[in-house]
Amino acid sequence: MTQQFTGQRVDLAVSTVIFALRPHPRTGKLTLWLPLVRRNRQPYEGKWALPGGPLAAEHDLVTSARQTLESTVGISETYLEQLYSFGAVDRGGDERTVSVVYWALVPRDREPAVVDGVEWFVADEVPELAFDHNAVVAYGLDRLRAKITYSPIALAFVGAQFTLADLRTVHEAVLRKTIDPANFRRQVLAGGTVVPTGTYVQGASHRPPALYRAAVPLTTKEPR
Amino acid sequence: MTQQFTGQRVDLAVSTVIFALRPHPRTGKLTLWLPLVRRNRQPYEGKWALPGGPLAAEHDLVTSARQTLESTVGISETYLEQLYSFGAVDRGGDERTVSVVYWALVPRDREPAVVDGVEWFVADEVPELAFDHNAVVAYGLDRLRAKITYSPIALAFVGAQFTLADLRTVHEAVLRKTIDPANFRRQVLAGGTVVPTGTYVQGASHRPPALYRAAVPLTTKEPR
Repeated sequence: MTQQFTGQRVDLAVSTVIFALRPHPRTGKLTLWLPLVRRNRQPYEGKWALPGGPLAAEHDLVTSARQTLESTVGISETYLEQLYSFGAVDRGGDERTVSVVYWALVPRDREPAVVDGVEWFVADEVPELAFDHNAVVAYGLDRLRAKITYSPIALAFVGAQFTLADLRTVHEAVLRKTIDPANFRRQVLAGGTVVPTGTYVQGASHRPPALYRAAVPLTTKEPR
Repeated sequence: MTQQFTGQRVDLAVSTVIFALRPHPRTGKLTLWLPLVRRNRQPYEGKWALPGGPLAAEHDLVTSARQTLESTVGISETYLEQLYSFGAVDRGGDERTVSVVYWALVPRDREPAVVDGVEWFVADEVPELAFDHNAVVAYGLDRLRAKITYSPIALAFVGAQFTLADLRTVHEAVLRKTIDPANFRRQVLAGGTVVPTGTYVQGASHRPPALYRAAVPLTTKEPR
């Protein structure tokens, strides 16, 4: 940071991995999806890539990521966190580019906008992507699956009020396994991350499920 | 990543927060220290800053961080992980710079080299630094103190063999609190991150403490 840069310049891009939960096209089971954009120029022309672009000098990193989120799914106010910066020399393309990658979670009750040039893919079944984006997506999935086990991040996928079954369904979809309802209930309530609203699901005939809300707003603990 | 950048360029730097444990100069209690370098040019001339520099086009990010580690403390093979990328527009300096920051942990049995222009500071008592480096250091401390509670990262501070008291001392120094030995022992052994070597501290007269080693090598789970 202290010296002038004398060699070849390094480009800086900001990309965003955006996860949403929708039914799998074959099995119908809830699963993770993400939006990709098709490249219309070299390198990797015709390949799918993560949405994003060069960092404008007047934008903070997170501002750039939020703009990508907005332009890709039409949603800006949702969980958004820095994932990792990818900068291997051999990550593809002629220009040396470092990508600061963010990840975002789309709540189940928000319908992503239909955007020209954007297509949604099952996150675990993406085709061969441009650059090192397959590795980026895999790392995003790893992070999500790790973090959901030790943080209340699943709350980002549900609405303001939800049943414990709603929350368990999110865990099951993300982790791709069934979870024992009684164990899950016990663990979530012991964790103190949700509190009962005192209200119940309307219209359920017998023993309507209790509704819960987040105990504290879900925020990312980040420096800026 | 797909478009040419048309506006002002953004510089890219790689900096490294390097933590070591040494006695506090006043209290004598083990505490976290880090090395800083004094800036000899504008902006922030005369201020202390994190070691690092511009990313050379031929270097991976982690290679750049490891070189900084090597040139700052004379150690390259130790725990090193990406911390965060800092890129706020108002983070200081005339040139817009994004810093990809790594953090490293120096084992207690390794003596950092004495390097011209490098000075060590108690991590919680650093002076006013250049750029946003106070925020970077604070974030590094936050990450270390969070991660030591849910991961075996404390192993990076001890040697290949250690007593449970050694490991507890690391936790106490990082977290700045005393920890009950019996509880700590129970938790560590339940966690399965350490295994007994079957040997004991030499020379201890009565009931010599058992030596342990890491159950698995401490690695960072990162994409590249």
